[in-house]
Amino acid sequence: MSIKMEKLVALCHRRGFIFQSSEIYGGINGFWDYGPLGVELKRNLKDAWWQDIVRCPQGGPEDRPISMVGLDSTIIMNRRVWEASGHATGFCDAMSACKGCKKLFRTDFLTDRVVCPECGGVLTEPRQFNLMFQTHAGAVQDDASMTYLRPETAQGIFANFRNVTDTSRVKIPFGIAQIGKAFRNEVTPRNFTFRSREFEQMEIEFFIRPDTAGEWYQFWRDTRFKWWQSIGLAGTNLQLREHDRDELAHYAKDGAGTSDIEYKFPFTDPGFGELEGVAHRTDFDLRQHAEFSGLGDKLKYYDQEKNERYFPHVIEPSAGADRGTLALLCEAYTDDPGRPSGVVMKFHPRMAPIKAAIFPLVDKDGMSEIATNLYTDLRKTWNVQLDIKQNIGKRYARMDEAGTPFCFTIDTQTLSDQTVTVRFRDTLEQQRVHISQVRAFLYTAIGNP
Amino acid sequence: MSIKMEKLVALCHRRGFIFQSSEIYGGINGFWDYGPLGVELKRNLKDAWWQDIVRCPQGGPEDRPISMVGLDSTIIMNRRVWEASGHATGFCDAMSACKGCKKLFRTDFLTDRVVCPECGGVLTEPRQFNLMFQTHAGAVQDDASMTYLRPETAQGIFANFRNVTDTSRVKIPFGIAQIGKAFRNEVTPRNFTFRSREFEQMEIEFFIRPDTAGEWYQFWRDTRFKWWQSIGLAGTNLQLREHDRDELAHYAKDGAGTSDIEYKFPFTDPGFGELEGVAHRTDFDLRQHAEFSGLGDKLKYYDQEKNERYFPHVIEPSAGADRGTLALLCEAYTDDPGRPSGVVMKFHPRMAPIKAAIFPLVDKDGMSEIATNLYTDLRKTWNVQLDIKQNIGKRYARMDEAGTPFCFTIDTQTLSDQTVTVRFRDTLEQQRVHISQVRAFLYTAIGNP
Repeated sequence: MSIKMEKLVALCHRRGFIFQSSEIYGGINGFWDYGPLGVELKRNLKDAWWQDIVRCPQGGPEDRPISMVGLDSTIIMNRRVWEASGHATGFCDAMSACKGCKKLFRTDFLTDRVVCPECGGVLTEPRQFNLMFQTHAGAVQDDASMTYLRPETAQGIFANFRNVTDTSRVKIPFGIAQIGKAFRNEVTPRNFTFRSREFEQMEIEFFIRPDTAGEWYQFWRDTRFKWWQSIGLAGTNLQLREHDRDELAHYAKDGAGTSDIEYKFPFTDPGFGELEGVAHRTDFDLRQHAEFSGLGDKLKYYDQEKNERYFPHVIEPSAGADRGTLALLCEAYTDDPGRPSGVVMKFHPRMAPIKAAIFPLVDKDGMSEIATNLYTDLRKTWNVQLDIKQNIGKRYARMDEAGTPFCFTIDTQTLSDQTVTVRFRDTLEQQRVHISQVRAFLYTAIGNP
Repeated sequence: MSIKMEKLVALCHRRGFIFQSSEIYGGINGFWDYGPLGVELKRNLKDAWWQDIVRCPQGGPEDRPISMVGLDSTIIMNRRVWEASGHATGFCDAMSACKGCKKLFRTDFLTDRVVCPECGGVLTEPRQFNLMFQTHAGAVQDDASMTYLRPETAQGIFANFRNVTDTSRVKIPFGIAQIGKAFRNEVTPRNFTFRSREFEQMEIEFFIRPDTAGEWYQFWRDTRFKWWQSIGLAGTNLQLREHDRDELAHYAKDGAGTSDIEYKFPFTDPGFGELEGVAHRTDFDLRQHAEFSGLGDKLKYYDQEKNERYFPHVIEPSAGADRGTLALLCEAYTDDPGRPSGVVMKFHPRMAPIKAAIFPLVDKDGMSEIATNLYTDLRKTWNVQLDIKQNIGKRYARMDEAGTPFCFTIDTQTLSDQTVTVRFRDTLEQQRVHISQVRAFLYTAIGNP
């Protein structure tokens, strides 16, 4: 890991953003928990996505509001879903074992495919290893009850395509969006939360007429890129990378294109890593489900305008909520030797886990009561924190590490003129604001939560 | 199933609240998906819980704001967590198999424990069956890599107790709250979503001084009961049931009490079913983790005020998000032969999946453009729906089935005086409101989303 990454991981643990799962039992490889600050940060990311994608999507190449509905399908599905999707047979990584130390390695991560990078022993020939977690639903553990934890949320959307069109009066073009956990039994989990075995996706399957694939592909690629910019990844660490034709997934070979929205994580390798993939999946998935379910043409969409039945094509913007959270953490992390904490987390205000902190300068003369009243009022609308004890420098330092954009301090002057100090996280500027204007100040600076 | 339940299940499918998982493959027993309306309903429930529990908890027997932080731990944990909690050995149901038809039955659901209720064959002696889903984390499926899907979110909180106290400066009394999926391999999933194999919990572990257990137990029992009332379960279908001493879980035998908040579901059996349990779990779980992790007294809480180390006691209000959603659906369901739909879903406005619908009376004279503009503005704040086609009666009927509290219609009069009709779902009353006042109307009626 790079030095910056080591410092970030330490801060994440120290301040309660991210812990190793089951840490008191020595952890479990590839699983991470979100602490009090982390869960709020990740919630803000997911809530912003739901608001901007499902409830209020903007723009679109056609002159009417984008049509989008939500869905929440289960992690465990009938295994035939994964036979149809191709995952049961094809979702594999090649893996080599060391004949000496018995360790396993993902073949494509090995620089030398003959010699074990750990002990120098001889490696076996690569073997295919399916990445899906297996389990059994039902009392008897046999082949009939075997199924999988989903490796992507997308198939829950395809499997419900007909249910949604039958019940929601959506008309093409429209999207179905979902946030949920997915599981991949990665051979080599690594780079903190970037490659985890349990992770959360934010996926859109956008259903379109086949002849409009080009414009919708471009629309979603550009819209999603701008969205990540809008929540704080505004700098040069974010890039859009169009895939070469020979990189494309089998279902996308004939498509309008595939691109990755990538963030430059401070890992020693691989540098830029995928935050979100935008792919033209053609009609591959719906055709597969039509075939495997035996429903055939009944899974086709009936286009009233054209009086025609067809399998719609799909543009899929598929984002990682954990990778997004990690990118927000990396982007926010700013060394600043001038501050007591030595570091400040410069989150976009919409993403910041704590929007504001309220401090009495000292715990006397009724300052704590004024602070408590202000806190009690503000927390009806925003996630705010009250901190009464410790010297003010230490309290500011904690809020710098938490990435809190504004700190309001009640001091002696407050007692005479009802103004409080507001301290701006990024500039360290301080202003006085009348206590009755704090709510209006936050509405302007942050908006609704 | 009762007739009401049958009608509700049909409506849930017809209008996109709840579908059977993997329906196009014949489903999978005990798994349910939330469609476009269902996902919004369930989100509203979970968001209200997060807001009212984590970000802005009210009241408390002590004279200061309740202290609560959030957490999001993984579904798959180190299996030692489940050895410590007792689930690996004790989380079992007794099960009997039929020697004739080979079917399996939960013994405590059998009225006759000798004869198969399906075919009349002879049943085997009851055997213990562990309800946890098993899986393997890692490339090799062996005993070392075996672990479980969590059967409750609570243990993720206990396992992180020290991480949270080390990083968040919380002081007893305080709570850690979590929303997340849990899995139980129920032998007999039934009653729609009530007893599912994959479900979502909303759990609080509230850590207290042992000598304050009585007052905090009462506080949470009463607070949680009132909360369910506040979101629409206000009638006699909600009840609080204090457990008898002999019903208590092993860890609660010496506690201040356990109670269930129950809702009278329209099942043929069992009538009242648990929505949420409030239990005094004593210090059982933390002691177990202290022992099994080898950390011993390091898992104790250091009480600065008392200068004392101890294992805090725990009051656990543990609610089911799916059961809560189902209760909201049941409570809202109201037969009304006077309406074209024959039924209206009377959701509390805060819970309603769609807060308002906007209709042009007819699609001409610019009414659709006015409707679209109003829709585009309102959806920045609320989940609203635009519906342009069909006769107005059918559109009202759809919104009655969706439980939309308000419908705004743009008609001929709008063109001359800029007023729109607002139709109230429950009373069918209609009023005219100036189009510039619709936003203010909704703020008053619903508040922030």
